[in-house]
Amino acid sequence: MFESAELGHKLGKQEYEAEVPKLREALLDAQYDLLEKKNASVVIVVGGVDGAGKGELANRLSEWMDPRHLHVHAFDRPTTEEAERPTFYRFWRELPPKGRVSVFLGSWYTAPILDRVTGTSKGADLDRAMAQANHFEEMLANEGVLLLKFWLHLSKKAQKKRLETLESDPRTRWRVTPTDWDRYEKYDKFRKVSERALRETSTAHAPWFVVEATDEHYRELTIGKTVLDAMRKRIDTEVPASQHPAPPLLAPLDQKDVIDAIDLTKKLEKAEYEELLEAQQGRLNLLFRKSAMKKRSVVAVFEGVDAAGKGGAIRRITGALDARSYKVIPIAAPTDEEKARPYLWRFWRHLPGKNRIAIFDRSWYGRVLVERVEGFCAPHDWARAYGEINDFEEDLAEHGTIVVKFWLQVSDAEQLRRFEERQATGYKRFKIGAEDWRNREKWHAYEHAASEMVERTSTEYAPWKLVAAEDKRFARIEVLRGLADRIEASL
Amino acid sequence: MFESAELGHKLGKQEYEAEVPKLREALLDAQYDLLEKKNASVVIVVGGVDGAGKGELANRLSEWMDPRHLHVHAFDRPTTEEAERPTFYRFWRELPPKGRVSVFLGSWYTAPILDRVTGTSKGADLDRAMAQANHFEEMLANEGVLLLKFWLHLSKKAQKKRLETLESDPRTRWRVTPTDWDRYEKYDKFRKVSERALRETSTAHAPWFVVEATDEHYRELTIGKTVLDAMRKRIDTEVPASQHPAPPLLAPLDQKDVIDAIDLTKKLEKAEYEELLEAQQGRLNLLFRKSAMKKRSVVAVFEGVDAAGKGGAIRRITGALDARSYKVIPIAAPTDEEKARPYLWRFWRHLPGKNRIAIFDRSWYGRVLVERVEGFCAPHDWARAYGEINDFEEDLAEHGTIVVKFWLQVSDAEQLRRFEERQATGYKRFKIGAEDWRNREKWHAYEHAASEMVERTSTEYAPWKLVAAEDKRFARIEVLRGLADRIEASL
Repeated sequence: MFESAELGHKLGKQEYEAEVPKLREALLDAQYDLLEKKNASVVIVVGGVDGAGKGELANRLSEWMDPRHLHVHAFDRPTTEEAERPTFYRFWRELPPKGRVSVFLGSWYTAPILDRVTGTSKGADLDRAMAQANHFEEMLANEGVLLLKFWLHLSKKAQKKRLETLESDPRTRWRVTPTDWDRYEKYDKFRKVSERALRETSTAHAPWFVVEATDEHYRELTIGKTVLDAMRKRIDTEVPASQHPAPPLLAPLDQKDVIDAIDLTKKLEKAEYEELLEAQQGRLNLLFRKSAMKKRSVVAVFEGVDAAGKGGAIRRITGALDARSYKVIPIAAPTDEEKARPYLWRFWRHLPGKNRIAIFDRSWYGRVLVERVEGFCAPHDWARAYGEINDFEEDLAEHGTIVVKFWLQVSDAEQLRRFEERQATGYKRFKIGAEDWRNREKWHAYEHAASEMVERTSTEYAPWKLVAAEDKRFARIEVLRGLADRIEASL
Repeated sequence: MFESAELGHKLGKQEYEAEVPKLREALLDAQYDLLEKKNASVVIVVGGVDGAGKGELANRLSEWMDPRHLHVHAFDRPTTEEAERPTFYRFWRELPPKGRVSVFLGSWYTAPILDRVTGTSKGADLDRAMAQANHFEEMLANEGVLLLKFWLHLSKKAQKKRLETLESDPRTRWRVTPTDWDRYEKYDKFRKVSERALRETSTAHAPWFVVEATDEHYRELTIGKTVLDAMRKRIDTEVPASQHPAPPLLAPLDQKDVIDAIDLTKKLEKAEYEELLEAQQGRLNLLFRKSAMKKRSVVAVFEGVDAAGKGGAIRRITGALDARSYKVIPIAAPTDEEKARPYLWRFWRHLPGKNRIAIFDRSWYGRVLVERVEGFCAPHDWARAYGEINDFEEDLAEHGTIVVKFWLQVSDAEQLRRFEERQATGYKRFKIGAEDWRNREKWHAYEHAASEMVERTSTEYAPWKLVAAEDKRFARIEVLRGLADRIEASL
């Protein structure tokens, strides 16, 4: 992987200076076209050997391009807010909106590689992290992010020379720390580990570009031209909305599905309900005060047919908790800042910190429910969402976040009854519009979508709990108990 | 101030239970109306004596209202990200968008009062903090935030009793900490200090409501009804866009103004420019690496007439710095998330952390320039902006942020020449549209606005530097030197 980056590539100063003005003009041009067309955002990931000039490269790109529309983020130690959330949180929050370019110094590769080099993790951990990286990057690519990954390589000899040169100049001496020399000692290991990492993550949608970094002219011009080519191609190419045909709908021959199978006859009498309500709310409250909860967080998802009683169930949860510990996030239309980024961005930004619960009233599952059924997104896009969502929830679970998902179901007839009741009361809080009635006509399409969703996204780390909601009392107890059970089992 | 809150107010359980259902219905109603009308956001600040039931109150409000549209924020210790920015940053970032309600447990009152009680600050510091609070709140009120401030009061005897009751019950014992008893010991001081704080900040736009907190029914129903009344009134009242007549334009009798007075004949020859450029860029670079800079941050503002060369000047700054240390923020139209909040919110969110510089290409001064001249905001609104902006920059300066502001000026004739040149090159990067030509027609109105802006917002802690930009080379050196001078003087 690094062989051709040790051939001693060089570029004369003259040639460099002849090329730069054209390149710069063309890069600016591409940048302004992108800003106008807004058909992608660009993330330039810079990794590589210490002393290979990653910072200098970022400076050069900022110099060549318009710094007003290009941001450089150096990912050093995570802040407290970042450390309380899954690893990818800090990368998500810095994703540029469409039209803009970001340079990432450090990335989701840094920690897995260094952990392996220092021996704090195993080879399998590295492989796993690289698989995660691949999933993340594939999702980014599909969501319109042009990801360019550069690896600045130095041979062992070149690295030594570079560190010595930096040290010998009083103006740059401060840049060489003992850590750099420690890492130099581990050069061979570093080379081996990073080769493995790069090999596993050089994919069609996000290949690595390994660049020999010994000569600054060579390194900068090579990268500048690669960035330009890739941006130009991305701006000028119309990516078809759907690249793949729609996957076939999973329609069981006997018309039976997991939603159908929910036993809607379940009920609770008032007296029993009130007793259970108090007991389960008390239980939930106590669980939240356990010391083991101090370092954990909970994400609860509510989905279900219209008028299934999600709001009421959520209030029975919040009623049991301290108002400081929860946040309910009602999902409506995305804001324009959200629309300019990959669709999961709007959920990542609401992830809870330690000892907190975020309750999503509708969620990322909109993609495979309403967006699928109503045709708001292309079949190829909702089809890939299952895997992306599973990855997302796995990130959460791996970080220690407890993920709980409820699907609330009522019968066709009961929904009609509730709709009519709402319409009769005329009470504005329960406004019922043409859209609700239209959705009812697609009852079966929604049921199929929900059924497929449950099948494809019910995982060990984030299983769906299907709740019979024909009887509101029964549903509320099921939800409270389901949540408490999951938390209890996870602590 | 606290006399009427020690009369032993009480409310029978029966009366309470008879009132609550109506109140709750009406609160939900108000909440949904607000969500639909979006003519205000609501911030409920809860302060008061320890053990007075602030947390319980937040829980009760969340129970009565729809938790999907009401968030409770408890401000405990600031996170690292918050600590690196001015005090008000954490409150700004939690401001709800229009249509929504937030409950703040703890606020900009907490630290100033406790610091005074424990003796770590002086009376004058408290007064100053309260004056800041008044300015902040007046701005919020003017920006469409309904601010409701409740102070839960307990007499000394009642506080003691309350802490003892909590301690005697095993279920609530954990809530009483040694800190609570320490603070109880300082009850008299606390009472005196908070009385002073409340007295100074009980204003027409944000009065305090002191509520006797001994009896929970009394306390909760009183507050619930107050919230309802205030919300109802706010939702149903059309606030006139401009409450005051436009202040007169400051037109000097002799037509001379600070902008006119800029000597536009200043020039630099190329050779001299290049020498100075290298020297000043080097100086700036070194300043950023000083250890005193590690704890400081810089905010640089660029304003000026169209085509004055702001972009070019900014690039001479970024060219001197490490790309990791700066962020350029070009100010264009606000996003919808920004439009839903007070106008300074969009700038607060970009404030730099330690050892960083944020460069604003156009800024909050748009309010008193383009928005004023084009009539995008009412005279009353831009007139109050001078004071609000001064407060904002004072917050920055007080935190240790170095604020530098540049106004770049060219002559009418030179602007025309640059416009025509841009039009002739036809190069898309310098698109010049009908709007630019229209703005030129308002040259004098813009000049007056700029002149008044400089007069009203050039402060000791954030002075304007007026830059003759007729000659680009001269302007760039002036900017670099101006920035380096300010930083040097501030370290």
